[in-house]
Amino acid sequence: MSSSVSPSFSALGDRAQPPTIARLMAMALENPALLSIAAGFTDNATLPVAQVEAVVRRLAQEDRSNEYLQYGSNHGRPELRRLLSQHLCALEPELDYHDVQRGCFITNGSQQALYLAMQVLCDPGDIVLVDRPSYFVFLEMLKGLGIESRSIPVDETTGLVDEEAFGKMLGAMGERGELAQVKAVYFVSYFSNPSGRSLTRDEKAAIARQLQAHQAIVPVIEDAAYRDIYYEQPWPAPSVLSMTEWAAFPRLYTSTLTKPFATGLKVGFATCSDIEWRAKMLHVKAHHDFGTANFNQRVMEAVMETGGLLEQLAVIRPAYQKKMIALDTALRDGGLPELGWTWERPAGGLYLWLRAPEGIDTSLESAFCQACVEAGVLYVPGELCFGDDAPSDTIRLSFGVLAEAQLAEAGRRFCAVAQQFAVSPNCSVKV
Amino acid sequence: MSSSVSPSFSALGDRAQPPTIARLMAMALENPALLSIAAGFTDNATLPVAQVEAVVRRLAQEDRSNEYLQYGSNHGRPELRRLLSQHLCALEPELDYHDVQRGCFITNGSQQALYLAMQVLCDPGDIVLVDRPSYFVFLEMLKGLGIESRSIPVDETTGLVDEEAFGKMLGAMGERGELAQVKAVYFVSYFSNPSGRSLTRDEKAAIARQLQAHQAIVPVIEDAAYRDIYYEQPWPAPSVLSMTEWAAFPRLYTSTLTKPFATGLKVGFATCSDIEWRAKMLHVKAHHDFGTANFNQRVMEAVMETGGLLEQLAVIRPAYQKKMIALDTALRDGGLPELGWTWERPAGGLYLWLRAPEGIDTSLESAFCQACVEAGVLYVPGELCFGDDAPSDTIRLSFGVLAEAQLAEAGRRFCAVAQQFAVSPNCSVKV
Repeated sequence: MSSSVSPSFSALGDRAQPPTIARLMAMALENPALLSIAAGFTDNATLPVAQVEAVVRRLAQEDRSNEYLQYGSNHGRPELRRLLSQHLCALEPELDYHDVQRGCFITNGSQQALYLAMQVLCDPGDIVLVDRPSYFVFLEMLKGLGIESRSIPVDETTGLVDEEAFGKMLGAMGERGELAQVKAVYFVSYFSNPSGRSLTRDEKAAIARQLQAHQAIVPVIEDAAYRDIYYEQPWPAPSVLSMTEWAAFPRLYTSTLTKPFATGLKVGFATCSDIEWRAKMLHVKAHHDFGTANFNQRVMEAVMETGGLLEQLAVIRPAYQKKMIALDTALRDGGLPELGWTWERPAGGLYLWLRAPEGIDTSLESAFCQACVEAGVLYVPGELCFGDDAPSDTIRLSFGVLAEAQLAEAGRRFCAVAQQFAVSPNCSVKV
Repeated sequence: MSSSVSPSFSALGDRAQPPTIARLMAMALENPALLSIAAGFTDNATLPVAQVEAVVRRLAQEDRSNEYLQYGSNHGRPELRRLLSQHLCALEPELDYHDVQRGCFITNGSQQALYLAMQVLCDPGDIVLVDRPSYFVFLEMLKGLGIESRSIPVDETTGLVDEEAFGKMLGAMGERGELAQVKAVYFVSYFSNPSGRSLTRDEKAAIARQLQAHQAIVPVIEDAAYRDIYYEQPWPAPSVLSMTEWAAFPRLYTSTLTKPFATGLKVGFATCSDIEWRAKMLHVKAHHDFGTANFNQRVMEAVMETGGLLEQLAVIRPAYQKKMIALDTALRDGGLPELGWTWERPAGGLYLWLRAPEGIDTSLESAFCQACVEAGVLYVPGELCFGDDAPSDTIRLSFGVLAEAQLAEAGRRFCAVAQQFAVSPNCSVKV
């Protein structure tokens, strides 16, 4: 069936390249004994199998219309959008329910909302400002669309947004005539993938302040995929939707039911403050797929109607906290802090974000990364998570998938490599 | 929450417009007594509620890994791809199973495969050759992507591809230097949406022959969404995948489990002869959503493993045939042939394709269309289904959704309007 003539591709087709992470995934496949703390998958053991089964049984018994196996609407089921809007307003009482609900739409995971937003806002060559570090699938998507990403500067020690440096950066961009190319600003603001940290209210306000000061009132996209996955307390900062500093900006808030409920259902959602922007994203969605699977939406609707989402969150919050502690403890017990590695224990989410001691290169092609693979542990090199000026000394570890005992073993393997690199001058490491 | 500054949109964002059909859908909402034979939805009564419920129960009991509620892979579950490849090869024994299986991937309905194909092949300003008439959501998608569509000429009486006219058209395009802009050819070849007809082997061969004669060896996309929905016999023509006339062309065959099983699950599939083209589509899919909902794929896999797809097809084939006959009979009993309306009874699919007698304008803005809405019946104006040079005398009627009695009533209403337009000189109709 292989054809003798190759197609000619579009500019987008020419840019389409295998994800950087593909090499890592291939390594994982080649070595089944490898423990992966790379993939951002979720915990299998706590997946809501019984809930989904009960809901599907109930629908089969009670919903004689069968409509949940029929096509749904392009923007998503009204009742699910109502329930999601209520859920968001419960987290953030400052919000106007009516506005949230009016702007709400359903997508194939929040990933699709991000894609639609970029498609309707940016042409190739445009610039999007991103947090530092940022979500690497978003950064790869930007490359695929021919869009440039630029990092919002942070203090290297605290990780906090550096307002002064951001102001200077915008000023310099203005002088170079680049500000007109800036079409959006994006950040993962709650228990971030990859950093695990959350933006404070002040940090978000500072971003808005500087953009406004430089007349760059561009659309903002706040990615809140992990907001519900706090361990003990919700993160107190409000979203851009209710912050007065952001009131003049078109705002898109994206989130999802995949991480908080089931990744396998792939139901995401977003709410947009700008009617025209929302309409354009939905027109494009109609061309992608004219609506997210109606069945999955109806299942989530039924789950939420009876409080099932909150039940599931009550299960997974302590589960992820325990897993975080298992990995964190393994790394501490393995002597990583004494070797000069630094990280903070997150208050939610699925990730630890490590910085290596000076002189250790953790990048994809590094000896350290290769040694970890050989030792049977796989991580995500942090360099993938930067819009520009990527340092080569960071690492993302995910504790979502493995069980606690496996996390402990993965941590031991990682620490053994770190020990080896700290003591061996052959590895050209300063101790 | 409404913002004070409007975003600036990309070229794609600027092109994103409400679908033409939106006005029709709004009319339907305004008049709940309206019988819609417009929407291409499927039959609610025969949706496989019991099968889906049984499969989900079985998975909950037997699959202790819970992995079906976890993320899946970007290109789709291997076992589902095997089962779909076997299913296709059973329909078309000339196919090489290994080739089909190697090229297979899973999408959010076949719509997403079409979108991905266009994204990686075409830049704005490029040209895609399409069947006449063609699938109107595909045509709107092309507009959204800034791609021009040109119809493959057909004989106006028989509807068959007019090879001589196609050759002349390609020749003229070559003279105008347009052939280099032709990036793909697309057709719905089995029980077409909208025409209900299928392409013969000779018609498909003629298209390949003329493209080859004009050195336009461009990728071909065969949309086989309705291939399984034959009433009594499969359509005998093979697909482009096994036709020697198409062997030199990169080939994408798209189909779906939505129409044959459940539209609400939104699982489509495609198989591509060109490894690089397939890889590029999958790279872009990774940016869209990094994989179709794994749960839906696992459900379909479980259904197919136990012969459930064939069971469901055995239910819906006679059901759609009966519905087709109900609408067809109502139109004949209502005297439509005597008024000069023509159509053919399809051998599969969900649509009747009517041509009005000379002088009757059936377009979206026509008095006829308005009169039908007032009479309580909604159709799709055929003018939406043409890549170019759209005639204003065709109509698509869908018998997928309504029950037989409703189809009979919708047919009566339609005929009453047709009678009124045939006799009233005020409607400026020649009788």
